[in-house]
Amino acid sequence: MRFLHTSDWHLGKTLCNANLLDDQAHALDQVAAMVKETRAEALVVAGDLYDRAVPPKEAVALLDDALDRLVRGLGVPVLIIAGNHDSPERLGFASGFLETQGLHVAGPLEAGASPVLIGNAAFHLLPYADPATARHAFQDDAIRTHQDALAAQLARARANHPAGRRFVAVAHAFVAGGEGSDSELGLAVGGTGEVDATLFKACDYAALGHLHRPQEAGYAQVRYAGSLLKYSASEAGHVKALTLVELPDHGPVRTEPLPLSPRRDLRRLRGRFEDLMRGPHGEAGDYLFLELLDEGPVLDAMARLRQIYPNILGIQPAPATPALPQEVVPSVDRELDPAALFETFFRDSAGRDMDEAERALFHEVAGRTLSGEAAE
Amino acid sequence: MRFLHTSDWHLGKTLCNANLLDDQAHALDQVAAMVKETRAEALVVAGDLYDRAVPPKEAVALLDDALDRLVRGLGVPVLIIAGNHDSPERLGFASGFLETQGLHVAGPLEAGASPVLIGNAAFHLLPYADPATARHAFQDDAIRTHQDALAAQLARARANHPAGRRFVAVAHAFVAGGEGSDSELGLAVGGTGEVDATLFKACDYAALGHLHRPQEAGYAQVRYAGSLLKYSASEAGHVKALTLVELPDHGPVRTEPLPLSPRRDLRRLRGRFEDLMRGPHGEAGDYLFLELLDEGPVLDAMARLRQIYPNILGIQPAPATPALPQEVVPSVDRELDPAALFETFFRDSAGRDMDEAERALFHEVAGRTLSGEAAE
Repeated sequence: MRFLHTSDWHLGKTLCNANLLDDQAHALDQVAAMVKETRAEALVVAGDLYDRAVPPKEAVALLDDALDRLVRGLGVPVLIIAGNHDSPERLGFASGFLETQGLHVAGPLEAGASPVLIGNAAFHLLPYADPATARHAFQDDAIRTHQDALAAQLARARANHPAGRRFVAVAHAFVAGGEGSDSELGLAVGGTGEVDATLFKACDYAALGHLHRPQEAGYAQVRYAGSLLKYSASEAGHVKALTLVELPDHGPVRTEPLPLSPRRDLRRLRGRFEDLMRGPHGEAGDYLFLELLDEGPVLDAMARLRQIYPNILGIQPAPATPALPQEVVPSVDRELDPAALFETFFRDSAGRDMDEAERALFHEVAGRTLSGEAAE
Repeated sequence: MRFLHTSDWHLGKTLCNANLLDDQAHALDQVAAMVKETRAEALVVAGDLYDRAVPPKEAVALLDDALDRLVRGLGVPVLIIAGNHDSPERLGFASGFLETQGLHVAGPLEAGASPVLIGNAAFHLLPYADPATARHAFQDDAIRTHQDALAAQLARARANHPAGRRFVAVAHAFVAGGEGSDSELGLAVGGTGEVDATLFKACDYAALGHLHRPQEAGYAQVRYAGSLLKYSASEAGHVKALTLVELPDHGPVRTEPLPLSPRRDLRRLRGRFEDLMRGPHGEAGDYLFLELLDEGPVLDAMARLRQIYPNILGIQPAPATPALPQEVVPSVDRELDPAALFETFFRDSAGRDMDEAERALFHEVAGRTLSGEAAE
């Protein structure tokens, strides 16, 4: 059989105050087109449909619309599990009604869940469940880690697996060794909640969600499809895609990533202010994280650059900070004298201290405008 | 045909910190039993399924369970509209899927909605919509009031009404002259958002929600079924019920209230402290709002009375306050001397000032325990 695997839609997510709903709707149009073009027999969404437990109502309406078009419009079954961002109960509402129409939603972990049978495959929907939830659902006090929880889910799936079908697991987890990015929430307090790839070794295919870069996880048949869009600066280099999965009756699975074309790309752009202003460099309307190579501070950089690049999400000096954008709230002591205040401002902007010549220049200019005492 | 009419379930509501979820589950069991016993051909829920736009997940699970049993278990169609407490988009999620299975949910107002045809009736589901929403949906700038909005909904329903069917409107509104209670939110800022009963005069039956007391609204065929439970002290005297509606092919509708038996009743009980302590009066486990007739203050009244009546929701002195409970936070000036403080305490507790004999008694007792200066 042939199906499509996707995950981490994060509908309703905002990025640096940018509302991505139109970008998500655009991407979901492509998902529907791919389902149609590939004549996929199912679409698997491996968790994090929404960005948070209580998504904005516009995100609810967007998901409703997308699922309606896919399942009722195209007649293609959609298989969904809750991820760590989703509320199992809310996502699972009315799932008893929906499954009879080809919309299979695994919200809360249920110990007695049956697989979904389509073509030659049995899809085992293993919603994200933390150890405490799994301990309760399986009434097994030995479940202490994410590894334990997922092992219990897989063991139960194995016990319920019908003969003669290929075994497909749909799960939301952080497989050890996978490459993360900045928009995934850790699964465990004080850690990543990692699980071992060997858990999935015996699967004919494991359709994973959680990590946002499309990637294999230890075995060719264990894959992250990756997120719908680039959801952080650290994902600028990703090629987002759906995974087309061809599962023959016998022998290994074949997978092929089908790239998505975003409504607006998300890029990191580095350069001197004047050079950037001579742009646009690349598509001006893209979501941009800029890194300025200028040594000195640049006055009103955001407003001026936005005249050329309207969708800048962040600007920072290139050398002084790590490669990834981070928010720094400088602590300015209002009691400092103007010279000390400017020293602080210069350090925050340029990422280094003023040298003697610059300090002398400041005093010269300040002496002309400020009172003698303040410019001392 | 024969159907049941209910409304204002307010699932997830708390009352004076009491979680009513078990009470609501108990009542929904009775609803299911009534549907079965009456062999109703449909159940109509006229809005306010939830108590708020984002209900607690336990309320979502409870509604899911109830609807599953009714529609998928008993095979009885359920017709739902959003009320002013509900989020139209959240309540309406997946409604396209659900309607094909007999679960009809009208969330957001849709100008082109079709009626639900069951038996000899066409049910027009008119979800609650404020004037601005209706103005937008109908693209009619003349819609300014709740009356205008509902009139537009009804006119559209009338235009879509198929010949040969009885006209049933399901709406959530405050019909002028209706008797309200303390747990209904006003529909309009600075007013009730009232509409005129004549709007519904031409309906064969109008199944209304919003007001919590079962009642007619101007015409015999225009009815509030009332809420699932007593949701405020002002509803203590209500008899909560579902309305059984018999709609013949010709002639007037016949209605019959079918009373609900709550898991715990909600009562207002008035008496002297000592008399109440000699109780229990009535079912001790009921939700109680007590009014104390004692003249003087009663020390630690709540804790002592709760030993007999564990589910007291509120206590207040009877004579000093209006008939309905209200929260009063006394403003105590900590700088006052003990005598003045006690005067304030006495006034708050007894609802009147101390008389001279009481004041003398206080000074006598206080003089023995406090320092001479403080007891001055």
